Amino acid sequence: MTSPSSRHAHIVGLGLIGGSLALALGERGWIVTGDDRDASTADSARSQGIVTGHEPVPETELVVIATPARSVVGAAREILGRLASEALVVTDVAGVKTGIVGAIADPRFVGGHPMAGSEQRGLAGARRDMFTGCTWVLTPTAVTPPEHYTRVHSVLRELGVNVIAMAPDDHDRLVALASHVPHLVAGALMNQASAVAEEEVVLLQLAAGGFRDMTRIAAGDPGIWPDVLFENRDAVVGALDALLARLGDLRETIERGDGDRLEDALRRAAVARRHLPGRAVRADQLAYLRVPVSDRPGELATITMAASELGVNIYDIEIAHGIEGVRGTLLLAVEADQVVLLADDLARRGFAVGREAS
Amino acid sequence: MTSPSSRHAHIVGLGLIGGSLALALGERGWIVTGDDRDASTADSARSQGIVTGHEPVPETELVVIATPARSVVGAAREILGRLASEALVVTDVAGVKTGIVGAIADPRFVGGHPMAGSEQRGLAGARRDMFTGCTWVLTPTAVTPPEHYTRVHSVLRELGVNVIAMAPDDHDRLVALASHVPHLVAGALMNQASAVAEEEVVLLQLAAGGFRDMTRIAAGDPGIWPDVLFENRDAVVGALDALLARLGDLRETIERGDGDRLEDALRRAAVARRHLPGRAVRADQLAYLRVPVSDRPGELATITMAASELGVNIYDIEIAHGIEGVRGTLLLAVEADQVVLLADDLARRGFAVGREAS
Repeated sequence: MTSPSSRHAHIVGLGLIGGSLALALGERGWIVTGDDRDASTADSARSQGIVTGHEPVPETELVVIATPARSVVGAAREILGRLASEALVVTDVAGVKTGIVGAIADPRFVGGHPMAGSEQRGLAGARRDMFTGCTWVLTPTAVTPPEHYTRVHSVLRELGVNVIAMAPDDHDRLVALASHVPHLVAGALMNQASAVAEEEVVLLQLAAGGFRDMTRIAAGDPGIWPDVLFENRDAVVGALDALLARLGDLRETIERGDGDRLEDALRRAAVARRHLPGRAVRADQLAYLRVPVSDRPGELATITMAASELGVNIYDIEIAHGIEGVRGTLLLAVEADQVVLLADDLARRGFAVGREAS
Repeated sequence: MTSPSSRHAHIVGLGLIGGSLALALGERGWIVTGDDRDASTADSARSQGIVTGHEPVPETELVVIATPARSVVGAAREILGRLASEALVVTDVAGVKTGIVGAIADPRFVGGHPMAGSEQRGLAGARRDMFTGCTWVLTPTAVTPPEHYTRVHSVLRELGVNVIAMAPDDHDRLVALASHVPHLVAGALMNQASAVAEEEVVLLQLAAGGFRDMTRIAAGDPGIWPDVLFENRDAVVGALDALLARLGDLRETIERGDGDRLEDALRRAAVARRHLPGRAVRADQLAYLRVPVSDRPGELATITMAASELGVNIYDIEIAHGIEGVRGTLLLAVEADQVVLLADDLARRGFAVGREAS
């Protein structure tokens, strides 16, 4: 028996995202049921108390389909047919939206895509704070009643998420640019270097910070990609063609020796990259500090402890390696009105603190 | 007056690299002279005590040409004509080697290229420990006497550098792959996103960790690149063509819907990326830990302080964002025989520590 005020959610697919959602909702007082096509995963989630059972109760308000992209439509239809509650709203977490949203076409379904994740995999990698501060796209359509949309939106805000509403096809076109094509490029760069390194292993010693940065996402789980890339084929091929055209133009510019044109392209990129906002926070709310660091133990700790002691939250921390860098510069994003506080403190501690031009 | 045992070095070009070298050599007891085509930079270096004067003394043993690539040949010839000492050896730091080494063709010249740098610029960004732990390529040729090569090598080892000897054309071909083409790709990705974001600014909110990683080097100084790219034209165009062919193949694979081929390519890239050795340290000497972290203040500090307290040096620290990640996983490289010590300590502190598969 649960109290009449309890809210009930059901999660289909208890992997990294589904498991994290179950934990996050449970922490906020939801009663969460959930299932997984893998029986041992479902059992493990129940025995750990991540879900209270495997079947949705009739009064379930929220269902999240957290399966791989190819299984979303079937799972959503099954749930929508089974649960008749007027209060029900169903969402999903797949990385591609047009096909899924078009195929379900039920007013109780609102497509979603959390821009979150980790290199951990499966339920074992699930964390209750996986979504705190992340950007979560919702894709309402003309058939979506406002109350259904706002219900999902308010649950996500409860989880500390930055919600963005987009049309499904806009989402797919833009993630092709921001995520799908970059992943393909990282893979191609890594495979190219790897093929050469089979003969000339010394290449890997030349792979400094820049190369490592550019290939990092290639280390992610390869199994999830064919689904997403095929489902988003048109947008991916379009974005890839546009990138190939840009690279072809740079190639001609180099062959022709046109220094002005080459430097102009690189200068525009440098300006744009320096203006790239921090993730999940509006750019005008954050300020950036650059702090050169060495490899000595404790130097990073000193910097981050100084911030903690001042009550300054570091929203984002990156290590920048310069053009072919070996030593690092920490790039710290903090709230704009706290940046002077932290900069002064670090300068007093002897760090060569710089402000990021913006 | 200097003691008879003093060693004298001269640096031409007192920017980021030249200034850092002057500081590093000075710290190790060298008497360092140096000049810069910008008189105020030269004056500043002297008034700060980074150099003792602007003219090389006759007993100078080591000259480093640390000018932009296009000025190296002229500066090296000038110095080689002026200083007659048998003990003299001249080296440079330009990012491209074949043309320079071929044009100078003096047994006293050994080409070099430190794989170091930072996003700071000029003398103001110079640091005495810029090169500690970095990879430094030397490009001896058939005309290089062993004693000249070993003299440069031993000076670099004094600076804590990991020296690799390569033929000039091997160097240029491999840095095209590991550095020059990745820089062009980062620029093209950034400009493509930037062009779309002019109309659809929401794209930038979708630019999560992966995109940020892949475009980070595009923020570097654009002015130094045309020189290096034109000088290394053949290798850059060759590497770019090979990358374009790989991307074109991925494009066809996606259009054709060949899931096995696509997943195979991405899987090979994932395996290769996970095996990429740490910078400047042999891969078999380091072990990697993954530690998921949240945005809470102090969490990073706790981890790095724990390492400091145990005397475990973190050779490399990266923040990995997963496929479209917002939250982070710290990837820590530590000496292999200390990894269990640190992992156990972090686990006791409640972190979900994982070992990197290798």
